[in-house]
Amino acid sequence: MTISDTTEGREAVALLERSRGAVQPELRSALDTLPGAVRRVALYHFGWEHADGSPAAAGAGKAIRPALVLASCRALGGDPARALRAAAAVELAHNFSLLHDDVIDEDATRRHRPTAWTVFGTADAIVAGDAMLALALRLLAEDGDPRSVAASARLAACVIELCAGQQADCAFEELSPEEVTLDDCLGMATAKTGALLGASCALGALYADAGEEEVRAMDAFGREAGLAFQLIDDLMGIWGDPARTGKSVGADLCARKKSLPVVAALASGTAAAEELASLYRGPMGASAAARAADAVERAGGRDWAQLQAADRMSRALGELSRAVPDLDAAGDLLSLAEFVTRRGC
Amino acid sequence: MTISDTTEGREAVALLERSRGAVQPELRSALDTLPGAVRRVALYHFGWEHADGSPAAAGAGKAIRPALVLASCRALGGDPARALRAAAAVELAHNFSLLHDDVIDEDATRRHRPTAWTVFGTADAIVAGDAMLALALRLLAEDGDPRSVAASARLAACVIELCAGQQADCAFEELSPEEVTLDDCLGMATAKTGALLGASCALGALYADAGEEEVRAMDAFGREAGLAFQLIDDLMGIWGDPARTGKSVGADLCARKKSLPVVAALASGTAAAEELASLYRGPMGASAAARAADAVERAGGRDWAQLQAADRMSRALGELSRAVPDLDAAGDLLSLAEFVTRRGC
Repeated sequence: MTISDTTEGREAVALLERSRGAVQPELRSALDTLPGAVRRVALYHFGWEHADGSPAAAGAGKAIRPALVLASCRALGGDPARALRAAAAVELAHNFSLLHDDVIDEDATRRHRPTAWTVFGTADAIVAGDAMLALALRLLAEDGDPRSVAASARLAACVIELCAGQQADCAFEELSPEEVTLDDCLGMATAKTGALLGASCALGALYADAGEEEVRAMDAFGREAGLAFQLIDDLMGIWGDPARTGKSVGADLCARKKSLPVVAALASGTAAAEELASLYRGPMGASAAARAADAVERAGGRDWAQLQAADRMSRALGELSRAVPDLDAAGDLLSLAEFVTRRGC
Repeated sequence: MTISDTTEGREAVALLERSRGAVQPELRSALDTLPGAVRRVALYHFGWEHADGSPAAAGAGKAIRPALVLASCRALGGDPARALRAAAAVELAHNFSLLHDDVIDEDATRRHRPTAWTVFGTADAIVAGDAMLALALRLLAEDGDPRSVAASARLAACVIELCAGQQADCAFEELSPEEVTLDDCLGMATAKTGALLGASCALGALYADAGEEEVRAMDAFGREAGLAFQLIDDLMGIWGDPARTGKSVGADLCARKKSLPVVAALASGTAAAEELASLYRGPMGASAAARAADAVERAGGRDWAQLQAADRMSRALGELSRAVPDLDAAGDLLSLAEFVTRRGC
């Protein structure tokens, strides 16, 4: 059974569709203000144009973050219509980071299409990402809403955190698995995944005129849910059903990824940790990957990640209930959080 | 005689030194809030640290832009002390673009030191540039000044223009000289050089509570002065005294740069234009460069650029006098504008 078969899954899918419908005109008209060649890269990246500039409908991803902005605003009694620009700004900031990450990681595919840098070159992809980041903050500054100042400060601070996360991710690639601590690894996942989910929820709360404490709790809700997602995603990268993950069995192990269950296993001080470390030092074919998966499990990495994911999700719900005590009002956010942990963000 | 020997030159040098002294603590404390590894790249780029993280005093450039912010604020009757954050934000935005331009252009040296990407790698330089841009806009948003919203919108819009200018610059590299029009070339120079000088002056005016018309005129003053600088810089790249420019004779021609006098010459429809186009198609040694310089001159490129530079400078002064009718109050800005056109920015 996939998530879209469950009631929550169907609700989240419908919610995301509605929110995309509301935010897309704002996003599209913002992108249309970009100067020619920069706009072309951006519209390609968002799936609205083919490489040759002709119209496309390739789909710009799930757009979880703008949905979180609008749902958070509504949950806290605000009018989501006032938060549409903030929602578009968050989506621009997310996509700026994707554009640059693809350049940095030399990833060739994004949303089933060639990445922008492979089509337009590295220079144009870097510059288009820069322009999208500036556009995100211009959008907020031109919002004409007094709440946009606090929103800008939060979004800019979050982008700095995203940058630190990306930097840490690259630095980890150069280290041997034993040199990466679990704290570093959790910190990197928080910065790369949690921070912008948290900022999305916080911005929604700001546009609902929520108090400082509620804004903080909404930020924490998004962060914890993001970390829960990352833990589950890492588990799926090792033990996930290939039919569901779209990856081959043990793909993350074959790539010798320093994912959270692996780093937890390596830090366990067990004999299985030694075995795993030695497997990570050698070439990793399918049979070595199967032994590595077994070693991660015996070293406690799988259990740890499952418990951590459950713990993070429960912390997320605790924070959410602090900001939105009425469970009915929090329903959309719960659906989105569940969707994120099961289907990614 | 160099500019620093003239009264205006000495005044500008002293003014820049005072403004650096005022802005640096703001800039440094902002950079110190960046997360570890990102901060290190930024402090290296600004000349405050060596590659190994030990303290340095390499000098962070002339810092023309923050000086323009403060001088514009003062000229329009504002308190420059209130514009220090805006001045630091402008300098951060400028340095973000330098960091990324160095990556994109693969330049190995900046301010007599190895560029950040050659020291820390491309990924870290891109990410540090991103963080510096976000920091610039965070600084304004956290300013606590109601004028910061308009300042943010202007700075963000200007960064988008910078991006378009950088994109155009890269695109021109791929074209043959005949394919680049003079309008394209002027547009690129305005975006790459004029826009941020204009925004610096406009931000200073905003923090002096200047009216819309004055802010617009200050923006135009900075833009026109920036274009005058670019024209003179391009002339120096062909006919400049190597002892003064620090470049070899005809350096820009040897690099087959599509500078403004060259593009103007090519667009002249003269026999000399034909000759220049043919020289630009072949290999360019010192003797070919000398013939190319001669062809640019005979095709009218040198005269055109000199007249344009004078015209732009006179337009700059016209705009300045609209915003600051009292010539005494405009004195610092005049010194800075003259300094920029003679010594670069």
